[in-house]
Amino acid sequence: MDRLTIIKVGGKVVEDPQSLNSLLDQFQKISGYKILVHGGGNTATEIADKLGIETKMVEGRRITDADMLDVATMVYGGLVNKKIVAGLQARNCNALGLTGADLGLVRAKKRPVQEIDFGYVGDVEEVNSRELRLLLNETVVPVIAPLTHDGKGQLLNTNADTIASEIATELSAFYNVFLFYCFEKKGVLLDQNDETSIIFELDQMLFEQYKNEGIISAGMIPKLENAFRSKRMGVKEVLITNAQNIATGRGTRII
Amino acid sequence: MDRLTIIKVGGKVVEDPQSLNSLLDQFQKISGYKILVHGGGNTATEIADKLGIETKMVEGRRITDADMLDVATMVYGGLVNKKIVAGLQARNCNALGLTGADLGLVRAKKRPVQEIDFGYVGDVEEVNSRELRLLLNETVVPVIAPLTHDGKGQLLNTNADTIASEIATELSAFYNVFLFYCFEKKGVLLDQNDETSIIFELDQMLFEQYKNEGIISAGMIPKLENAFRSKRMGVKEVLITNAQNIATGRGTRII
Repeated sequence: MDRLTIIKVGGKVVEDPQSLNSLLDQFQKISGYKILVHGGGNTATEIADKLGIETKMVEGRRITDADMLDVATMVYGGLVNKKIVAGLQARNCNALGLTGADLGLVRAKKRPVQEIDFGYVGDVEEVNSRELRLLLNETVVPVIAPLTHDGKGQLLNTNADTIASEIATELSAFYNVFLFYCFEKKGVLLDQNDETSIIFELDQMLFEQYKNEGIISAGMIPKLENAFRSKRMGVKEVLITNAQNIATGRGTRII
Repeated sequence: MDRLTIIKVGGKVVEDPQSLNSLLDQFQKISGYKILVHGGGNTATEIADKLGIETKMVEGRRITDADMLDVATMVYGGLVNKKIVAGLQARNCNALGLTGADLGLVRAKKRPVQEIDFGYVGDVEEVNSRELRLLLNETVVPVIAPLTHDGKGQLLNTNADTIASEIATELSAFYNVFLFYCFEKKGVLLDQNDETSIIFELDQMLFEQYKNEGIISAGMIPKLENAFRSKRMGVKEVLITNAQNIATGRGTRII
């Protein structure tokens, strides 16, 4: 099977023009099939603020009401996505910006209301791998924003880590998928204040232990849960690292 | 040659949910190859206002500074484009939202500064018809926002009528292209206050005459210039009409 590299980058990386350029330089060098999945970052919150749209959080999690969904669609699907696409085109990568609605790529279900009503947030139901494979075969480089649709006309805000994981899993039947979760650090750290304390290999048992000890906490937990899930489901390599390490493959390997 | 229908719709049609739904219903019924090109409308101005970005006009024409380009990218490339895509996907049209940067579809040149500095406005230089044909062959329905790129990483704001005209012209070598410019009226009117006074056929001579007489004025002039140019360059049919008349083909025919 051919190699397919899927890079997921967080919002912070793509918001700063300098780190974005550096990322695109790294990404351009990847040979073979590749896909970029990006988050949204703080721009959406800032723009919502300026538009007088209140950012509603419940238990530390953002609620996506109709106005906030419009902002997400503008910022993730428009501003961030198209800047990346234009930057990659300038680097001779045939980039194509996509949301989960385009080509019906990622269908999701609006999260059911239980204790919390998250609003227009989608849980992924189906990835259309056929369309992605057609694009990859034409040497197109998909650039995917964290938005999905329900197939009935409704766009939905969806976590970028989850989208990357679902796409990687689905495509692992057709490619040797290498999935890189890129963020600000060089890997999962034993000590948040020591950039050299990278955990080079992480298995499920160690993950549980570190969770219990509080070494791994907050946003890193769902990220790693996605990573472990992908690895279990057939993704060949899953790495947590920063954009500078895409080429070297250093960082935290999920085993 | 196969028939290809290209529908250009203005911002006003896509901003109002009811008229958007009606347009998408009409558009869904078109058989054969089809492309939708949309404008942006007033949403960009409204959002710019709310964000405290001043809309600068010189001689009645909008200036696109860096902030306004970001707004255009958000609204045209994100909000408007993705709502249309999700709406078409719900109607079993395999829509794919695109700007001119995606797949390097439409390359433009930043308009040179002469008397007026229009800012980040692009004049179309090249349409990549190969990529569009590949998509059409896969029964994909391209939905194109009025944004282009310069191939060096810069997005540019570009008139939607012009994009529709350039794409129609480029594709007329491969398809029998039917180009519909849809706006609020049923066609070009002899009397702006009389919706029944449609000019059913318009040739270049009559156009010049009506321009001189002031019957055709303002924004209709560049629209018709695009229309005549497309017709001269090989587009089979060019029609100025409203979305309700896509099926009937009634309106102002360019001859």
